[in-house]
Amino acid sequence: MLPPGSTIGILGGGQLGRMSALAAAALGYRCHVFGPEADSPGMQVAAARTVADYTDAAALARFAAAVDVVTFEFENVPAATLDALAPLVPCRPGVAALRIGQDRIAEKTFLEAAGIPVGPWRAVQTRAELDAAVAALGLPAVLKTTRMGYDGRGQAVLRSPGDAEAAFARLSPHPLILEAFIPFEREVSAIAARGLDGTVVTFDLAENRHADHILDLTIAPAQVPDAVAVQGRAHVAALATALDLVGILALEMFLLPDGRLLANEMAPRPHNSGHWTMDACQHGQFELHVRAVAGLPLPQPGRHADSIMKNLVGPDSYAAWPRLAACGDVALHVYGKTDARPGRKLGHATRILPSGSLAQHRDPALLSPL
Amino acid sequence: MLPPGSTIGILGGGQLGRMSALAAAALGYRCHVFGPEADSPGMQVAAARTVADYTDAAALARFAAAVDVVTFEFENVPAATLDALAPLVPCRPGVAALRIGQDRIAEKTFLEAAGIPVGPWRAVQTRAELDAAVAALGLPAVLKTTRMGYDGRGQAVLRSPGDAEAAFARLSPHPLILEAFIPFEREVSAIAARGLDGTVVTFDLAENRHADHILDLTIAPAQVPDAVAVQGRAHVAALATALDLVGILALEMFLLPDGRLLANEMAPRPHNSGHWTMDACQHGQFELHVRAVAGLPLPQPGRHADSIMKNLVGPDSYAAWPRLAACGDVALHVYGKTDARPGRKLGHATRILPSGSLAQHRDPALLSPL
Repeated sequence: MLPPGSTIGILGGGQLGRMSALAAAALGYRCHVFGPEADSPGMQVAAARTVADYTDAAALARFAAAVDVVTFEFENVPAATLDALAPLVPCRPGVAALRIGQDRIAEKTFLEAAGIPVGPWRAVQTRAELDAAVAALGLPAVLKTTRMGYDGRGQAVLRSPGDAEAAFARLSPHPLILEAFIPFEREVSAIAARGLDGTVVTFDLAENRHADHILDLTIAPAQVPDAVAVQGRAHVAALATALDLVGILALEMFLLPDGRLLANEMAPRPHNSGHWTMDACQHGQFELHVRAVAGLPLPQPGRHADSIMKNLVGPDSYAAWPRLAACGDVALHVYGKTDARPGRKLGHATRILPSGSLAQHRDPALLSPL
Repeated sequence: MLPPGSTIGILGGGQLGRMSALAAAALGYRCHVFGPEADSPGMQVAAARTVADYTDAAALARFAAAVDVVTFEFENVPAATLDALAPLVPCRPGVAALRIGQDRIAEKTFLEAAGIPVGPWRAVQTRAELDAAVAALGLPAVLKTTRMGYDGRGQAVLRSPGDAEAAFARLSPHPLILEAFIPFEREVSAIAARGLDGTVVTFDLAENRHADHILDLTIAPAQVPDAVAVQGRAHVAALATALDLVGILALEMFLLPDGRLLANEMAPRPHNSGHWTMDACQHGQFELHVRAVAGLPLPQPGRHADSIMKNLVGPDSYAAWPRLAACGDVALHVYGKTDARPGRKLGHATRILPSGSLAQHRDPALLSPL
């Protein structure tokens, strides 16, 4: 167990690093944020900062010497960065989870091996392989780069065979994956925290709704049958254990009309679809992440309210800020980004509702627009 | 209303400054902490730091130029410091509230003028005045320095006339005040937030219990008759308005056996007896302080749980830390103090209980020892 006053090193200074650093500070830890951009959201709240590239070996060695443990805030940190740090300082989670989360094919393969169902998929390297994959999976289907995609980037939807040519031209020569289109009823997220001693705790399942390929709303708890909620939590717990993960793990899943859950994507870090936990649970995802990384015990999260989280995306969203700030039942979080470009996540707002409220409404999102 | 990315200057880098800075960061603000000690708890989480004495005029001028608004975390910041800053940058709360809170005689006088009852007291400058005050108020009574006292320092209890000589010798030549001993049933705290527009919101009344003259437990909500709770909240709201305060105001009061409340002390800043609000309310005292200082709307605090807060005092308290960290219903806060001397407040732990739990127990403190 890291004693108070120890330093947690965080690779990446975005909002996830910032909220992790704030949670670490509440527990008495110092944070040292490492990343390529000065004055990043995370650095603004850290006791120490290193502005350097993730490939800067000398800076990484100094960072390792200055911290007691290292974690990361996003899964596109180069695996080589963790490879360089791992011999010098404990890295939690380790590079194995990072590598798997960085590659859609490695991820699908690992999920299947861990007994967690995924939708039909094929690896695609060549134009001919794409045609074969389309023939096997049928259309519509989604062609994706295997690496570095997020928020809908690096993707193309194929609706008819004629779409294949342009999609392949746009996304190759990167390694690709074709995923069968899943006629899902809803997208849900399950989040687990796993401690150094192997303890796993899970949050209630949440429902995600997207706008322009970016997460717009998370509704928690998801209004699904109990058996689905139990299954979703069991999947993410099994995956955290299979990964030997220390920290937070998020698993996005599709809920099919027949009640089955198919895993879509995982992220071995605090996740946007878990932001609601900060305000609706006794212990939120960032606190549990820090606890895991610091070797502290992991308590049950203890949800005390229903909640609806809305992302504040792009500078236009600031117009809603004064109205949201005036709502007594809304928790407002703003990330301190100095460059408020369109499409960037600048903050989020979580409406807190009495436990059980969501169950009484056909469409919870209509219950209280944010 | 300060836009996101604005900088809040905080005079003082102790735990109150730290928790204010964390609350400000959640709302998207940058913090600049000014204080005499490097690597203070507040500076560890601030975007910018100035290590300088409160009387350093040049450093204060640079600080004023670097921030959009100034607040303070403790009432012993020299009033001259705010006098120097006020022409350069908005200071919230202003120097008037600071001056009143720094002097027990000014405080009693202001409280009485605001219609808030206080116990009998006399100003004492000379040995003869002390004898006259003892004759007027009776014994026991408490002799206090009018300034710079906290956590029982600068105080002497007079139980018999023979105690006067030694107490006067120890505490003079500082200006003194003799306060009649109040045979109170309990000590309670009321906390208000007052916004730039004059809006006042109040938290539920809380009960305080001390050990070795330092706050040990806060039990919230205080288990008192409704009329007492209403009166306590009305007192602190009236005082905030009378002070024209912008920010948080704490008012400690004695509850007499006949149900009357007598004001004891006020503090124009977030207060130890309000730490429970961080975890038992939708909006805690530090968030409301930042909102007031930044000109944001002040929502109702929205308590969702009963709570018992325990201070972690001195390095011996760290022994309890692992046990507290393992409790799912305990929120742990550690302040990052690098010098963990005996008697210092190093953190606090708040046990969260279902609303209404406290009312079912004769002595809530026995309900769940921390």
